[in-house]
Amino acid sequence: MSYTDLTKAREALMSLQKKLAAYDHALGLMQYDGVTTAPKKTADNRAQSMSVLTEEVYILSTSEETEKLLEYLDANREKLSEKERRMVYLLLKDIRDMKKIPMSEYVEYQELLVKADDVWHNAKEKSDFALFRPYLERIFETAKRFALYIEPGKDPYNHCLGDYEEGLTTEILDEFFGKLRSSIVPLLKRISEKPQVDDGIRFGDFPEDKQEELSYYLMKLIGLDLERVGLSTTEHPFTTSLGSHLDERITTHYFRDDFVCSMYSVVHEGGHALYDTGSDEDLAFTELDCGRYMSIHESQSRFYENIIGRSREFCALIFPKLVELFPAQLKGKTAEELYIAVNKAQPSLIRTEADELTYSLHVMIRYELEKRVLAGELAVKDLPQEWNRLYKEYLGVDVPDDKHGVLQDSHWAGGLIGYFPSYALGNAYGAQFLSKMRETVDVEKCVASGNLEPINEWNRENIWKHGGLYTPQQLLSRVLGTGLNADYYVDYLTEKYTEIYSL
Amino acid sequence: MSYTDLTKAREALMSLQKKLAAYDHALGLMQYDGVTTAPKKTADNRAQSMSVLTEEVYILSTSEETEKLLEYLDANREKLSEKERRMVYLLLKDIRDMKKIPMSEYVEYQELLVKADDVWHNAKEKSDFALFRPYLERIFETAKRFALYIEPGKDPYNHCLGDYEEGLTTEILDEFFGKLRSSIVPLLKRISEKPQVDDGIRFGDFPEDKQEELSYYLMKLIGLDLERVGLSTTEHPFTTSLGSHLDERITTHYFRDDFVCSMYSVVHEGGHALYDTGSDEDLAFTELDCGRYMSIHESQSRFYENIIGRSREFCALIFPKLVELFPAQLKGKTAEELYIAVNKAQPSLIRTEADELTYSLHVMIRYELEKRVLAGELAVKDLPQEWNRLYKEYLGVDVPDDKHGVLQDSHWAGGLIGYFPSYALGNAYGAQFLSKMRETVDVEKCVASGNLEPINEWNRENIWKHGGLYTPQQLLSRVLGTGLNADYYVDYLTEKYTEIYSL
Repeated sequence: MSYTDLTKAREALMSLQKKLAAYDHALGLMQYDGVTTAPKKTADNRAQSMSVLTEEVYILSTSEETEKLLEYLDANREKLSEKERRMVYLLLKDIRDMKKIPMSEYVEYQELLVKADDVWHNAKEKSDFALFRPYLERIFETAKRFALYIEPGKDPYNHCLGDYEEGLTTEILDEFFGKLRSSIVPLLKRISEKPQVDDGIRFGDFPEDKQEELSYYLMKLIGLDLERVGLSTTEHPFTTSLGSHLDERITTHYFRDDFVCSMYSVVHEGGHALYDTGSDEDLAFTELDCGRYMSIHESQSRFYENIIGRSREFCALIFPKLVELFPAQLKGKTAEELYIAVNKAQPSLIRTEADELTYSLHVMIRYELEKRVLAGELAVKDLPQEWNRLYKEYLGVDVPDDKHGVLQDSHWAGGLIGYFPSYALGNAYGAQFLSKMRETVDVEKCVASGNLEPINEWNRENIWKHGGLYTPQQLLSRVLGTGLNADYYVDYLTEKYTEIYSL
Repeated sequence: MSYTDLTKAREALMSLQKKLAAYDHALGLMQYDGVTTAPKKTADNRAQSMSVLTEEVYILSTSEETEKLLEYLDANREKLSEKERRMVYLLLKDIRDMKKIPMSEYVEYQELLVKADDVWHNAKEKSDFALFRPYLERIFETAKRFALYIEPGKDPYNHCLGDYEEGLTTEILDEFFGKLRSSIVPLLKRISEKPQVDDGIRFGDFPEDKQEELSYYLMKLIGLDLERVGLSTTEHPFTTSLGSHLDERITTHYFRDDFVCSMYSVVHEGGHALYDTGSDEDLAFTELDCGRYMSIHESQSRFYENIIGRSREFCALIFPKLVELFPAQLKGKTAEELYIAVNKAQPSLIRTEADELTYSLHVMIRYELEKRVLAGELAVKDLPQEWNRLYKEYLGVDVPDDKHGVLQDSHWAGGLIGYFPSYALGNAYGAQFLSKMRETVDVEKCVASGNLEPINEWNRENIWKHGGLYTPQQLLSRVLGTGLNADYYVDYLTEKYTEIYSL
């Protein structure tokens, strides 16, 4: 079929995207089911189905009909709306990239990822890197091979980084992380010379059902629509959209002896969910639906987790609810004690539980390791010892086992190479957005009063509603009139920790 | 592509079935997600994705390539294995039937069913038939229309019945139900003249987490592999296979004031799951995988629920576990009291909670109503009053509202017209299988000792492993050397209830 009628071609564009969204829904749900509900030994069965559907997506995406349609629309792009132009651009790019990868290798890789995730869970449980190692080797090897298929002339790790944020390179990141490190390490040093703050308030016995009640309270508080956003529990918290921004799921992990972990997982994943579900209605079932770029995504999740969630005002706001849920455990405690506890800066082992100050150091370690593995300077088999060495060097901590070391994150098992820097970029972007937001919104007052809507409204109008319409650089430029600038984040951290620790 | 090479064609047959299984997996999982985990307002989003995938299945199934493949294989059927021949036969039949339905109507119907299920849940909650009525009207209307597309000369209800069991007709069922009714009604009358038995043991306060523990205990006890079979909670218990018999899910519904309801739901759905997961390994991802015919399926589920589960031996077997879980509630009670309680015969309102004796009367009512709606003798709008009238006539009970009446079952909302008779046929087949099984297995002794494996082995060898290889009539003939015979079931009921009520 060749297209000559623009109206028909535009309809076909929407119909193609609806198909892709349906496959995404199916594949996303299978993955979600795998980590939430599925019985233990069903991973192979799921991998089989996912491999078939992935192949169907590949066939649909790379079909002559699809390519003709997109090329026709691309040739007529001046007649398309801004959104349609962007859809066509992204689809064409994806498809051209995809066509550079042989279908069998593409499908095999998707199958590998499904199994790898299962093996990773098992390896983490047993703290046995050797179990996971052959999978991780194949994942890194494939990531590199695919990168070279798609951009043969380019450094493979730069290709991976560009997958998450167009134009991002190790050059930019080396400078960015250098700046963060040179500010955070001295701050940490000054803190270590002060008396340690008391974070005893977070520890005790907190039954899961009460923590779950807290989760729903927090989800409502930050403005999520509970009839559109579901909550489950998983080993590693995450957020996923199913089909469109109209069905969103977040997950958390409850620790009975520490209610703070899950609390901030929920607010973090809730930030992702606010972003996704804030897409304009007409983006549903299109390529532009939901947040597309991980750095902007993390700017939102970490904005709600840290800038909002770990603020003095937020701690005061939720404290009565905490006392209601945990009256015996929090007897005689104060909101200020909570604020100090959740901002205790202390080098530690686990990224997701790290405080705001040391967090970026965790990210830097992963960035360094990925970069060196992709460059062929580090073998996967040596990852555990190198991981442990860097944790000692950057954070001064001894890693007791791989469960608390190289096996802690699910990202690599899911093929997410080049993702980690997004967390640190998100921190920086979040601080930049905050500074702009303050021009029109009294952020502290909103949080203190429990009315987050003006904050959400600002984010919705400036960020969420656009979904994937703009690249991170375009979005920053639109909203801030500038690009990445680590100073805002460094200033924010310095001010916050100077006050808390009376530096 | 036209086929000339049998080896290639056989491979293509397996590959086609793998694709169909993957779509089935996706669609089944979406449905399962919808009733277990999904946030409330996501049904439309899910319907959108399911409609796309259903259309993809339609396109794949009815494609020229698929038809050519199957016709080539059919022409060479004498060179195929028995299993392959049956796969080709079933696929060709399904596809020829499907092609008689215009694609848009087919997809629209699938979409309607997804929405109808959501509306039904809501209508049931509110006990408001009017909410559900327009959906049910369209479902019955479509069932009739599709029946006439596929078998224009045939009575539409007979077509629907044949969908669940080849060759089944209202003639056969009228006679079968007539026989059941003429035995059950007098039995019930004699029981009603006796003093009522005490079923107080089942009522009290039974926390959900303890009931859940009981569920897993029962699943293990009857021989399910918990690493392949998952358990969730839903409004209406059901069983589903995802992708193949290698991933099975059952659901139950806990009532805090009565532990017996969920207990027998778990054993009933567990029976379905035993059947499905007992398929031969080489049937995975084919049309023959899992139990295909609902009457045989119900023969297994109701065999485990009633013949095994409501036996004196089973009640004695599980009683210590019940006392361990509910020590205060069951203090001073005996296994014999449990046996009497779970076999109390008493006309009631809810089919799924009905005792073994009155159960078939509930089914008969649904059969009568379906038959008359399909024949155009009864309007959907009049279903509630006719339902209530028949409950009074057959069971002597007054239906207080539609929640406890016409809205109680999910089947019609799911488009399952002609399914209900399977339950009664399953009862009859189960009693026939039992009689044959007794020739080589000491059923009571197995249950008493807690070793159900000889029973499972008999079912596996005779029924489960064949999956959909044989029609119900072929299977009965292989296993029993005969067809449907209601006498075994009537004798079983008469003997059991005569003893319990000293008739």
